[in-house]
Amino acid sequence: MAKKYLFLNDYSEGAHPRILRALADVNLRQELGYGEDAFCLKAVELIRKKIGNRNADIHFVSGGTQANLVVLGSILKPHESVIAAASAHINVHEAGAIEATGHKIHVVNSSDGKLTTQAIQEVVNEHNNEHMVKPRVVFISNATEVGTIYNKKELKVISDVCQQNHLYLYLDGARLGSALASTKSDLNLSEISKFVDVFYIGGTKNGALLGEAIVINNPELKKEFRYHLKQHGALLAKGRVLGVQFLELFKDNLYFQLAEHANKMADNLTRGIKGMGYKFLTESSTNQIFPILPNLIIKKMEKKYGFYVWTKVDGKNSAIRLVASWATDPGAIDEFLSDLKRG
Amino acid sequence: MAKKYLFLNDYSEGAHPRILRALADVNLRQELGYGEDAFCLKAVELIRKKIGNRNADIHFVSGGTQANLVVLGSILKPHESVIAAASAHINVHEAGAIEATGHKIHVVNSSDGKLTTQAIQEVVNEHNNEHMVKPRVVFISNATEVGTIYNKKELKVISDVCQQNHLYLYLDGARLGSALASTKSDLNLSEISKFVDVFYIGGTKNGALLGEAIVINNPELKKEFRYHLKQHGALLAKGRVLGVQFLELFKDNLYFQLAEHANKMADNLTRGIKGMGYKFLTESSTNQIFPILPNLIIKKMEKKYGFYVWTKVDGKNSAIRLVASWATDPGAIDEFLSDLKRG
Amino acid sequence: MAKKYLFLNDYSEGAHPRILRALADVNLRQELGYGEDAFCLKAVELIRKKIGNRNADIHFVSGGTQANLVVLGSILKPHESVIAAASAHINVHEAGAIEATGHKIHVVNSSDGKLTTQAIQEVVNEHNNEHMVKPRVVFISNATEVGTIYNKKELKVISDVCQQNHLYLYLDGARLGSALASTKSDLNLSEISKFVDVFYIGGTKNGALLGEAIVINNPELKKEFRYHLKQHGALLAKGRVLGVQFLELFKDNLYFQLAEHANKMADNLTRGIKGMGYKFLTESSTNQIFPILPNLIIKKMEKKYGFYVWTKVDGKNSAIRLVASWATDPGAIDEFLSDLKRG
Amino acid sequence: MAKKYLFLNDYSEGAHPRILRALADVNLRQELGYGEDAFCLKAVELIRKKIGNRNADIHFVSGGTQANLVVLGSILKPHESVIAAASAHINVHEAGAIEATGHKIHVVNSSDGKLTTQAIQEVVNEHNNEHMVKPRVVFISNATEVGTIYNKKELKVISDVCQQNHLYLYLDGARLGSALASTKSDLNLSEISKFVDVFYIGGTKNGALLGEAIVINNPELKKEFRYHLKQHGALLAKGRVLGVQFLELFKDNLYFQLAEHANKMADNLTRGIKGMGYKFLTESSTNQIFPILPNLIIKKMEKKYGFYVWTKVDGKNSAIRLVASWATDPGAIDEFLSDLKRG
Repeated sequence: MAKKYLFLNDYSEGAHPRILRALADVNLRQELGYGEDAFCLKAVELIRKKIGNRNADIHFVSGGTQANLVVLGSILKPHESVIAAASAHINVHEAGAIEATGHKIHVVNSSDGKLTTQAIQEVVNEHNNEHMVKPRVVFISNATEVGTIYNKKELKVISDVCQQNHLYLYLDGARLGSALASTKSDLNLSEISKFVDVFYIGGTKNGALLGEAIVINNPELKKEFRYHLKQHGALLAKGRVLGVQFLELFKDNLYFQLAEHANKMADNLTRGIKGMGYKFLTESSTNQIFPILPNLIIKKMEKKYGFYVWTKVDGKNSAIRLVASWATDPGAIDEFLSDLKRG
Repeated sequence: MAKKYLFLNDYSEGAHPRILRALADVNLRQELGYGEDAFCLKAVELIRKKIGNRNADIHFVSGGTQANLVVLGSILKPHESVIAAASAHINVHEAGAIEATGHKIHVVNSSDGKLTTQAIQEVVNEHNNEHMVKPRVVFISNATEVGTIYNKKELKVISDVCQQNHLYLYLDGARLGSALASTKSDLNLSEISKFVDVFYIGGTKNGALLGEAIVINNPELKKEFRYHLKQHGALLAKGRVLGVQFLELFKDNLYFQLAEHANKMADNLTRGIKGMGYKFLTESSTNQIFPILPNLIIKKMEKKYGFYVWTKVDGKNSAIRLVASWATDPGAIDEFLSDLKRG
Repeated sequence: MAKKYLFLNDYSEGAHPRILRALADVNLRQELGYGEDAFCLKAVELIRKKIGNRNADIHFVSGGTQANLVVLGSILKPHESVIAAASAHINVHEAGAIEATGHKIHVVNSSDGKLTTQAIQEVVNEHNNEHMVKPRVVFISNATEVGTIYNKKELKVISDVCQQNHLYLYLDGARLGSALASTKSDLNLSEISKFVDVFYIGGTKNGALLGEAIVINNPELKKEFRYHLKQHGALLAKGRVLGVQFLELFKDNLYFQLAEHANKMADNLTRGIKGMGYKFLTESSTNQIFPILPNLIIKKMEKKYGFYVWTKVDGKNSAIRLVASWATDPGAIDEFLSDLKRG
Repeated sequence: MAKKYLFLNDYSEGAHPRILRALADVNLRQELGYGEDAFCLKAVELIRKKIGNRNADIHFVSGGTQANLVVLGSILKPHESVIAAASAHINVHEAGAIEATGHKIHVVNSSDGKLTTQAIQEVVNEHNNEHMVKPRVVFISNATEVGTIYNKKELKVISDVCQQNHLYLYLDGARLGSALASTKSDLNLSEISKFVDVFYIGGTKNGALLGEAIVINNPELKKEFRYHLKQHGALLAKGRVLGVQFLELFKDNLYFQLAEHANKMADNLTRGIKGMGYKFLTESSTNQIFPILPNLIIKKMEKKYGFYVWTKVDGKNSAIRLVASWATDPGAIDEFLSDLKRG
């Protein structure tokens, strides 16, 4: 790997140095296990303030797939199902984690990775008797898996259609930092929190060593949640490791500063690539971008940079995924662009 | 918590300082995700040498319950079951994680937390047709949940009875360091590895920030194991966090040095308490001990120290659990003993 | 099989002739599928009257294991568990059906197959935090799997302890006819129904071709139950087959007449065998009895009769299980007894 | 229901009279339980001959959803999945039964209810690493849920693509009688059996009271199958009820005679409706047809006949489903057609 610069993902590096320092600073203090330590308790209080809900239940887990399967597994009764876009992480990239908890995912095709109220309503209407599963949760991600974001109006109408249809709304926030830090976003943490029943704030992809913060707003979904965490092996013995990190990320504005850097790096890439006349698979204003390049160019760039070829576009061109992170080196962006220009 | 010294468990502190330093040293190196980074690969090689099996498959996960549920969930077919002692972690303290993957645990009563070949054979003999589940795995822990250990002969005959009955043998090594570092143990890592089909080497309870290393010796059980990890949310995006730690623990003798300290601290407690004439629930030579004390004394000690009351022994006495760790302060041991003597 | 007379079980024959006649009588009438036919609807009304609960939800399924797994699978949340006697059908003879729906069974030892309030309370007390499963249902069977029955007082105190501990009480009535028809029983259908949240009335073992009637008294447990039936393949397309049978069994007293015959036949066996000085494993007043006989005698009797050797009692004696049914021939009883006397 | 004639499904009536007679004839013979009776054994031998595979394992169950969930649940490992057409019964009308056993269904859009090799290959190609599930079974139904059938060539190439990709091929034969009795079919039972790893022969929808015969050709899939049956509550105590019926259906040509009648009745409907100038949703040569009628006409016809409105075609027209069965009265066909003509 030594010589390639990686735009593969937003977890190629370790943690932001402040995170490591915070862990070291309190390392030898004795604390209770399983998330009942002083750091977790403080981090919970801090996040409650940031989201504007003093009654939210907040739990820290080690990764996004884990967050998704514990949340959905705890909400859904055996015959209930979840509606998601075809590109949703739970549908494509979790090795069947949701089905393994016993539940069907209704797959809705969507070119931009987002759900519409119409698509949700159609699924609900089609499932109206006991020979079929019963849709009960709507799953959205913000930013989506293809870099797009929901704006306030879009989120509100989805929230409304959920309430009208007795559906819970769950938001996967693996890249919530990047979504909210987007220059195109008109949402903030506390608005997000008002519109959804449950969501998680992603740490792993935004500067933490590991960790996501599950936020449960709807009181119906809070009960005995720690049992579900434990049953899925998601209750870390040294839960403090997660608490300390979220405390550091949210005690000032670090969480959003890191996301802004990632977005800015991606934006620099986007503007550079657009300047060369290339099109993009999606309109991304976050840290993942999907330029469409000639396969021959992709081959060349792969020698020096790490990235995924996302999908074929036609016989000669493919979309690739470039991901920037809190740690992305501005110099690497410049170099990538000048290499690409050279062709 | 401020004023109590905790003997509650072996995860009250963070990580050994060398672990944190190792994480910081390589923090900004770009690496592949999901355990395919250079640190994990090196840690795998290192552990293969230590266990004397160059062909073992080794996977790092974030905790013991997670290790147990992924391993057992991947081995067992829907109608197959696992045999375990009543005190087994999977039976008592994992919130039904194994049953949640669909499998029955046959519970064998045992005063010392250990299984005997006779008990295993009886369960097998009783289950002989399709109206009952089919036992397929034997679960043992070393050290056990009550501080005891298996010696070489005991482990060998269990391994033999498993082979004779077409059973896989799985060893939960949450406290394997403490077991092997025990002055009473005649086993080492490579012998353990020869006797069992799968086991895990516990990091969380022996100085790591988090992490356990699953070792699969039996080739039948290796296939597509990473799918199972992913499905259970056990494939950390920044898998390097686990690789770096195990590399540090095993690059010299740190892992066993930490366990030795924990054992020594527990032994000091044991000798001190025995010296005062108290009995113990089990014969422990590891870092968990279970002295039986008068309830009145327990009440007093609880004001200054944190520990669990494990079980009532009679109307006036209870067994408590005292756990020492790599971080236990020798001064705290002395203080505890002198406080106990004072009564 | 030709020459052996079978005391193996209460499903060695087909259905009572009236059942077959009833099926033939309405065979060509067109009806809705999946239990929404006129016969099921009438049978539901009839059973509601018999149990004295006009609001009960009643569903017909094809067998006892199916009834148990659908009921428990629908009640329990992922982290909840069920308390049962060690001899309970769900624990021993359902191939792990309950664990396959994800739930732990707490096994309580019991020499007579019955649960006590003390045993229930102990399990509840021991499970008090999220590291353990949460007991939520108490499973009892009447008659039990070893032929014993609950009397009114025993059932009442169990019902009380369930209410006090927020537990649902579920009664497996595979042999409920035999239990209530027992000369020792002081209970009837409507009293049973008052004490339990859910139960099922067994048809297969009491004269039906197949079929059990699940009765849900507790409104909390009624919701969307048909989804659970469908998901487990328990909603028969020609649901009428079950409705017609239960209509026939309950339109007069046929159900209890059949059970009385079975009990009487078993009682004749019991008195005959006791008269020869043999002891019994349990005090059964129902259609299953468990005499303890010398192994040598058992060997001889096995040549002419079919029955299970239930358990070894000592080196020379074993308990066998003899089951009588609605179809048992009184002549076969006499013959069995005279063969046994001859030794 | 009294006055409407039902074309709702093929299970509106009871069983063919010969089936009931056969059950009555042997009703009082004592037999072993759970499918080990003489009738099941004979029926197994008979079916083995009919399918030309003396080594097939054959098991009788009570319904199609049950067959599907036990078969797929027994084949698939936790991370494996099944490929099916969007209209597949397992995808739409089994209340999530397959997902409840833990497995994802890959949904392939298809206007005629059939899978193509290309669609299968695409799903396989897209799933190539441990972040995704692993396709392992291809599910087809013959006849399909929309009345179409596979011909020999189509089945062969699907079978080939399965072998090339290490996929098992499973055929849902709920309406296999109707498919093979179709005048358009160039397949017979023994050819079907050669092309697939597992299939079931539907009884419920072709004259039986209840029952389907699962046929396992692939030796890899036979092992311990009865455990899976038992665990899902699919092992009927009086298994004889199923054996007697399949014996009667296959001891001469009754099974196919019944299917031929159903097909002929459907064909009469098709020709009559086509003669009036109406189009159809699919090209069906089996017992289910899907004519497209004006909504106003549908409203009128619904007063006198029972049938499902299958799908909207445009603002003014919908496809309805008409199902004929072994019991369909030719007079009712004539009446339906003349009512429809009258408009």
